[in-house]
This record gives sequence, structure tokens and C-alpha cells, in this order.
Amino acid sequence: MFVRNTWYVAAWADEVARGSILPRVLLDEAVILYRTQSGTPGALEDRCCHRAAPLSLGTVNGELVECGYHGLRFDQSGRCVHIPLQREIPPKARVKSYPIVERWRFLWIWMGDPALADPGLIPEHYCMDRPEWDVSRGDLFHVKGNYQLVSDNFLDASHVVYVHKSTLAQPEVVDFPIRMERTDRSVSMTRWMIDVPPSPFHSSLRQFPGNVDRWQIAHVTAPSHFSLDLGSAPTGTGAPEGRRVNAVTILSPNEITPETESACHVFYAHCRNFALDDMAMREKVRQDMLTAYREDWTMIEAQQRKIDADPEHPLLTLGQDSGVVALRRIIQQMIAQEEAGDAVPRDQRIRA
Amino acid sequence: MFVRNTWYVAAWADEVARGSILPRVLLDEAVILYRTQSGTPGALEDRCCHRAAPLSLGTVNGELVECGYHGLRFDQSGRCVHIPLQREIPPKARVKSYPIVERWRFLWIWMGDPALADPGLIPEHYCMDRPEWDVSRGDLFHVKGNYQLVSDNFLDASHVVYVHKSTLAQPEVVDFPIRMERTDRSVSMTRWMIDVPPSPFHSSLRQFPGNVDRWQIAHVTAPSHFSLDLGSAPTGTGAPEGRRVNAVTILSPNEITPETESACHVFYAHCRNFALDDMAMREKVRQDMLTAYREDWTMIEAQQRKIDADPEHPLLTLGQDSGVVALRRIIQQMIAQEEAGDAVPRDQRIRA
Amino acid sequence: MFVRNTWYVAAWADEVARGSILPRVLLDEAVILYRTQSGTPGALEDRCCHRAAPLSLGTVNGELVECGYHGLRFDQSGRCVHIPLQREIPPKARVKSYPIVERWRFLWIWMGDPALADPGLIPEHYCMDRPEWDVSRGDLFHVKGNYQLVSDNFLDASHVVYVHKSTLAQPEVVDFPIRMERTDRSVSMTRWMIDVPPSPFHSSLRQFPGNVDRWQIAHVTAPSHFSLDLGSAPTGTGAPEGRRVNAVTILSPNEITPETESACHVFYAHCRNFALDDMAMREKVRQDMLTAYREDWTMIEAQQRKIDADPEHPLLTLGQDSGVVALRRIIQQMIAQEEAGDAVPRDQRIRA
Repeated sequence: MFVRNTWYVAAWADEVARGSILPRVLLDEAVILYRTQSGTPGALEDRCCHRAAPLSLGTVNGELVECGYHGLRFDQSGRCVHIPLQREIPPKARVKSYPIVERWRFLWIWMGDPALADPGLIPEHYCMDRPEWDVSRGDLFHVKGNYQLVSDNFLDASHVVYVHKSTLAQPEVVDFPIRMERTDRSVSMTRWMIDVPPSPFHSSLRQFPGNVDRWQIAHVTAPSHFSLDLGSAPTGTGAPEGRRVNAVTILSPNEITPETESACHVFYAHCRNFALDDMAMREKVRQDMLTAYREDWTMIEAQQRKIDADPEHPLLTLGQDSGVVALRRIIQQMIAQEEAGDAVPRDQRIRA
Repeated sequence: MFVRNTWYVAAWADEVARGSILPRVLLDEAVILYRTQSGTPGALEDRCCHRAAPLSLGTVNGELVECGYHGLRFDQSGRCVHIPLQREIPPKARVKSYPIVERWRFLWIWMGDPALADPGLIPEHYCMDRPEWDVSRGDLFHVKGNYQLVSDNFLDASHVVYVHKSTLAQPEVVDFPIRMERTDRSVSMTRWMIDVPPSPFHSSLRQFPGNVDRWQIAHVTAPSHFSLDLGSAPTGTGAPEGRRVNAVTILSPNEITPETESACHVFYAHCRNFALDDMAMREKVRQDMLTAYREDWTMIEAQQRKIDADPEHPLLTLGQDSGVVALRRIIQQMIAQEEAGDAVPRDQRIRA
Repeated sequence: MFVRNTWYVAAWADEVARGSILPRVLLDEAVILYRTQSGTPGALEDRCCHRAAPLSLGTVNGELVECGYHGLRFDQSGRCVHIPLQREIPPKARVKSYPIVERWRFLWIWMGDPALADPGLIPEHYCMDRPEWDVSRGDLFHVKGNYQLVSDNFLDASHVVYVHKSTLAQPEVVDFPIRMERTDRSVSMTRWMIDVPPSPFHSSLRQFPGNVDRWQIAHVTAPSHFSLDLGSAPTGTGAPEGRRVNAVTILSPNEITPETESACHVFYAHCRNFALDDMAMREKVRQDMLTAYREDWTMIEAQQRKIDADPEHPLLTLGQDSGVVALRRIIQQMIAQEEAGDAVPRDQRIRA
């Protein structure tokens, strides 16, 4: 079961060049993402209505997608507009199409009711295209685990000490409490570490004269639109009150898109507002994060195998799971509402 | 569901040397094909009746097959005729056997009612062993698609323009109509292209002084005994009326044998009646066809994956599918008749 | 269905070093075998009770196992004794634990009712740690076949002629009868070959002046605790009556532990009471046996695939299968008794 009435990232915009077709499974549906010769992105069912050939084995022909088996051509609404050897086109000659929008360097797809596909509902990741931010684009990950296991990981800062021993862990992390806040659509987990030595990673990004105030904020808009806010500022300069002076800030959009019930795609980047022209810094941030992400996937994929092996085996909820539980409840409600046919209110603008 | 009361090609005759055993799955049954020391071919169930060891791990012992685990020996009727350490042979000590005939360089097997296994029903592929024809033997293909998807491909000439862009395609092909003929057991699709430039492939086989009349004839006897007749003759010399003067003719037997519901074996060859002693020509024909066949398998295997992923998803029938539809109807009738217990009339001789 | 109230070999003792964790599937349950820093072996369910992370991705922390995701720690009873960030430990915070005993160079696990786990029931393999025996330790085998197919193989000496053509086979073997003996918990198959030429293998171990009396004894305590006794002595010196003078004797413990219904682990060794300091002899015995074992696994795995493909297909019992049938009946009774809740009598000491 998935939330359908939301914008999911289907691909990085630059994965789909003009005239090219990219097949991808999203929410258990096989989709092609393509870009016409004029540059418009499109999204269609990856199966020709004639003989079930995958359209991903076809080609982009001008503004149309042409099946590679018998040459049927489809426009962006999924309507067949050309059949070789045949004048009349039967009304059933069409494939499913999906609303698609290009924004924040991503292609966003709407897998639910097309009538509700308001582009104003696309999560905001402004740091992806403002000149005062530089982007370390993350690698595209296909994680063999349910998308909620990835969400759990982002919402649970306590794993850092155990999973990321060689990368992000700092023992003092566990001494500071985490504050959970939730709305009817979002959850955030905030930890402030006041007057602590800077982490090796933050130190490598900027020289700090002494101790720092360090923050870890994970914000998620359901079902799986994450924005992480991570940083340090010299202690006593007012960071907890909102002043970020001589600070290191990294904003990290993390969009998790279900592939199936037991796998998902993760699209992420790390955006920084310092050393903007430093290409070595851009690459360093990418590499350091890559290692940590891989540590997470190893654990998540092992969890999924265990859950698959014994799906009825209960899990035990601990105090540290407050954010995890809150997000899962919201998603359950959203799915129940969709099943009951309730629409998403138009005025409910999502801010990831 | 398969038609069972028909002769299927089980193997090329030269795949099974004297004293050797070849395991192969045919119509969902695991079979061994073997040849005794005296040269007679045999076909048995690939499972010993004693402890289920595969007979394909055994050996040919004279005229018998000997199990590799405990040494039981079976004759060509499947009867156990020797048990080590034991005089008496229980009547249940036997494995299933299948009628098998060697003809046209193939081993033909009958998977249905043995009482109906009349060798006179074997499809005729005379070009395989007449001195006026030279044979480019095709590679043995194991295609991961239902055998009817392969039949569809042979009966549908329109795919040539899209699938075989780099090999067989000629744009003018689509300008000429196809004529479908059917009997209660066979379908043929015929296309004549009158006064057209010779195709690059036909030109490479023979110098033509000018335009040609070109033909593509696909004939199939149900369920899947194909014979293709492909060629060109100088235009105006009477080819459409049956005179083939200075012509290039290639006859191509194509026998499709189901392995399972989602895979099949394809046995094919290309026989030509010109340049008989030209071994380079024999190899050229083989290579050119090999490339085209592989283009087809890529598409067919992708179709099968799509169908497996959503078996209930309907297909759309177009005008170009008349032959496809006709053959599928015949096969449905044959299967229904077999289920109803109706025998194949003995006098119904098949000519592929 | 497995017999559960018995000691199975879970691992070679030296597979589990201090501070290390070994994951293994036993009787369809995923288990970790580990050794604390002080050297005590332990066995726990390979799944954290919190979020299903495999404990095999964790670490040994002193005498405890620490989960690699969130740092929960478990003692050898499976009780959680430490949760980071949380004082109170809920009573449900525990994982399944298994009795484990180190003996005869093996780690023995009890997968049944822990109240019945009497170490006195561990099969006796004294040749594994007496100074008058030297051990050729076998390789650990993971055989993709039901454990009873391996038992069948050990109880059926007739396969040697066919499966081990290049290694153990001697044609005269089949001329001598096999005697079967059984108790309510064990079966043994004994063959004496009187006044025969020594086998190439036995000749290579010791020079015999002439013919020998040769024996093959397979003893099994249900469900799958095997001890093989193989040897030769000069003929006429009284070996059949129990005197082993100038003999070659190899005792071979063979412990078969089910992994799933269609796979098992085989732990075996070959112990000899001659040429004790001859390391080349130790290795020669290991290598010669290794080849023969592999011939068996090839056949057993092929059997399993055949059985999986058609589980309802009946098998045919022959006279040579008396031991096989007897052991299978005992195992059926044991499983029926366990299902009925009958305990294993405490005084029923097993001697393998």
C-alpha cells in the first residue's frame, strides 16, 4: 500500500536527455520517463497496448513515443496517434499516462488521481537552484528495502553511533535529547548539542576557534519528502535561537520513492552555503556522505530480508522511535483516506 | 496448455551422438534424448523410478540406459530390465517413454497419446536433405517466451521495419498488401512486392540487372510447424505466377517446440538452391539470419516479461494480426479437441 | 518436519573464535553462533527484537551481543540487558536463545524444548579427541538436498559401484550380502567381504601381504547421527569375530544437520588409529574422501531438484532399501511423538 496522491521524484532531470527513454518501476508500476525532441518530459506506462511490448524498447520520434515492435506512436496523454498499415485508430488504442513536472533538478511524477495533480503541491527544495547554494549531487540509490525503513533511519538519530562508527559517530551525541514535533502531515526530529567540540567532518569544512553548537534536524512531509538540516556554529553565537553566524550549514533534500513493497529509490543531495566555488569541497561532501549512506543501506536491506522471512514477527517499539511511529501513523491515515476516496485539500501546500 | 498429439522437434539429430544422453525440457516434461551404441535414438522420462535420480546423470550401456545412482537399467520402452542385487523386477519398475523418429536431420518426439504417433504426420521439410539444396543450419535457440509469441512474430511481417532496422527492413515493404489464407490446420501469409529494387540482402546473394519481384511467404501448420519461403526474381519473369527464373529462393524450416508456458526451443535452418558449393555463402546466410533472429528474441522475451507481470492485462487486436488470430484459434480448437478426447484423424497428413 | 529434541552439530568449534559471530540457518531458523570474550559459546535468534536487524551484523561486546543498528545488548539467555537512551528495559525485550555445548570439536545446539536439553544425550564420537586417533577434518558441506537424502546415501552401500566409479568402487562389493540391524532409535548396515584383494585405497594406507577381510559398517542414531566404521585386516586373522590385528580402521563421524526442508549441513571427519604422526597421510585421507563426498552431493542435489519439480511422484522401494526404510520409520515416529508432546526419556542415552 502506497500513498498515491503526492508528487514523487521519478528521476533526476538530467537522467532523461532529449530523445531518450528511461524505464523505471515506481509504486509497483513500470513506467517510461522520456523527453521529446523539443525538450518536454513525459511519463507513460511501459507496455504497448497492442502486443505488450515494452515502450522502453521503442524510440522517441519527434514529440511522440514509437513502439519498437510494430511502430504504434503515442502522444504525452497516452493516446495512440499512428498505426502503420491502418487508417482508423480504435479508441482503446491508448496507454496510461502520468502527470510529470520538472523542478529542483528532479522530474516529479503523480501516480494518483490526475485531477489532483497540482504542481503547487511539489515539495520545496529551494537550495537546489539558488545561487547562494552549491549542490553535491548524491548518487542514485536503489535500496532493496521498503521505503519506510529508509524513513525510519532518517528519523532515528540514535543509530549513528552504531551504524556509522567509522564516519559520522560521535559518542557525545547520545547525551543530548531529541525533540519531536508533528503536524497532521509532517514530523520533525531536532537535536541541539550545545558547547561541544566540532565533529571531524564539520572541522574539515571550516576552522572553528573552539567549541560549537551543533544541530541535526530531520523534517519529513508525509509520505517520504525529507529535508535534513545539519550544521555547527561557534558556541554562544546564538545558533539555537536562529542566528547562524560563521556557521557550517548543510541542507539535504532526500526524496524516497517506493519501487515495490520491498524496494525504493533514494534521490538526495547535499547543499552548502559556503565555499561555493570550491569543486574539491563539493566532491568531498559527496564522497563522505556516500560512505555513510552505504552503511545505512546495508542495514536496511538486511532488515528487509529478515522481515520478508517472517512478516508476522512483531517489532518492539522503544522510546527513541517516537518519530518513526508518528510518521507511520500519518501514512496509515493518508492511505485510509485515499481508499475512502477523500481528496487531498487543494490549499494544503506541502513544504518539505 | 499445449497441443500434445503432434510431432515436435526435440533436438538436432547430431546433438545426440552414439552412447550419449541429452537432457531437455519439452512441454513441461523433463526428458532424456539418447542414442544407443547401435545408433537407435530413444526418449525417456529424466527421472529414475527408484529414488528420483535424473537418468541424465546415468550412462548408455549398450542398448540400455543405466541410472547413475544404483545401476537400474531401462530399455527404450521405459521398462526396467536389470536391478543390481535383485532377481525379481517389480512391474512398477518403469519410466515413461516417448515415440521418437529421426528425419530431416531432426529428432522428432511425440508427447501425446503414443497410439496416435504416426510417422506419416511428421512435417515435411524436404529441402533439408535433397542434393539440390544446401543448408545453413541455424543455431539452437532457447527463447524465454511462450512459443506462440514466436509464431506471432513469424506471421506478422510488419514488425520487420521496426525490429530489424539494421538488417532486413525496407521501407517500401509496408506499401504492399498481405494476403492471409487458412485451412482448418494451417495459416499462410503472403506478400508480393512487384517491380521493386532488390533488397541489400538479396543483392548480396545474386546480381540482378534491375528491379525484382520479391516475395515473403510464411506457412504454418498448427501448432508451430513453420516453413518460410523468401526470395526475389527479375521483375516481369513470372515469379508471381509460379515461374522462378534467375531467382534467389531461401526456404526456411522453423520448428518451435514449447519448453514451458513461458519458454521454447527454436530449431531453424535456411536452405538455398543456388551457389550450392559456396561455403562462404552458407556461412554468410547463417550469420545474417542469426543477427535478425536475435533482434526478435530480445523483443519476444521482453513481451513475455510484461505478460508475466500482468497476465490479465488485455491485448489489442489490429488489422495486421489476422494471421496471428487465425493460428491462435486453430490451436485453441486442437487443445479443446484433445481435452475432449478426440483423436487426430489418421489420414490428415501434415505438410509444413 | 524435523526432529527437534536432539543435539545437532551447529558448527565446528573452531569456526567461532572469541569475539566473533557466525550466522547459520538450522531447522529453518536463522541463528547466530558466537563466542564471548571469555570464551563461552552462545546461540541466539539472528534478529533483534527491536527493528528486526540481524544480530549477525552486530558485535560481541564482552560477554554480550550488541545489535549493530541501535546498540541493544543481549546476554546468553536472550535477555536484553542494555538499551541506549533508555533506563527501563521492557520485559518483551528479548530474543530466542538455544542451549549450546562444545564437545568432540563441535558446537552442539538443541533446537527443541530447552527443558530436555541434557548434555548426556550428545552422540559419542570419542575418536575425535583421544590421543590414539588422528583426525582428518572434513570440509564443511552445505548440500542442497533434504538431510534424509544424505542419510539414504550413507545407508545404501550399493551406490558405491555407480557413483564412485573413479574412487571407492570395487566390483566384488556387490557379491557380499548386507546385514541390517535396528533398535527403536538406531539402524546399522554391515557388510563383510571375506578373503578379497585389498582395495586400492586401503592398500595405499598399509601394505597387506595377501587378501584381506574388509568391512563397511554404517551406524546411525536417529535422526541423523552417523558413525561409519571402514577397514581391512589380513584375512584369517579374526576381524569378523572382533579381533583387528594389523588392520586399517577408519572411524568417520558424520553429523547431518537440516538447514531447511531442501538443504542440510554435513559435518564429518575421518579418524585413523595408525600412522598418527604422518601429516601427509592425514591430508591424503582428507583429499580422497573429499572427492567421494562431492560425487555424492552431485547426485543428491539432482535428486532434490527432481523431487521439488514433482513432489507427489511416488518412489519405488527395492530390497536394497531396508535400512533407508527403517530409519525413515523411526524418524516419523519421533516426529509424531514430539507433536504429541511426549518427552524423550531422560535415561535414553544416545551412542552414535
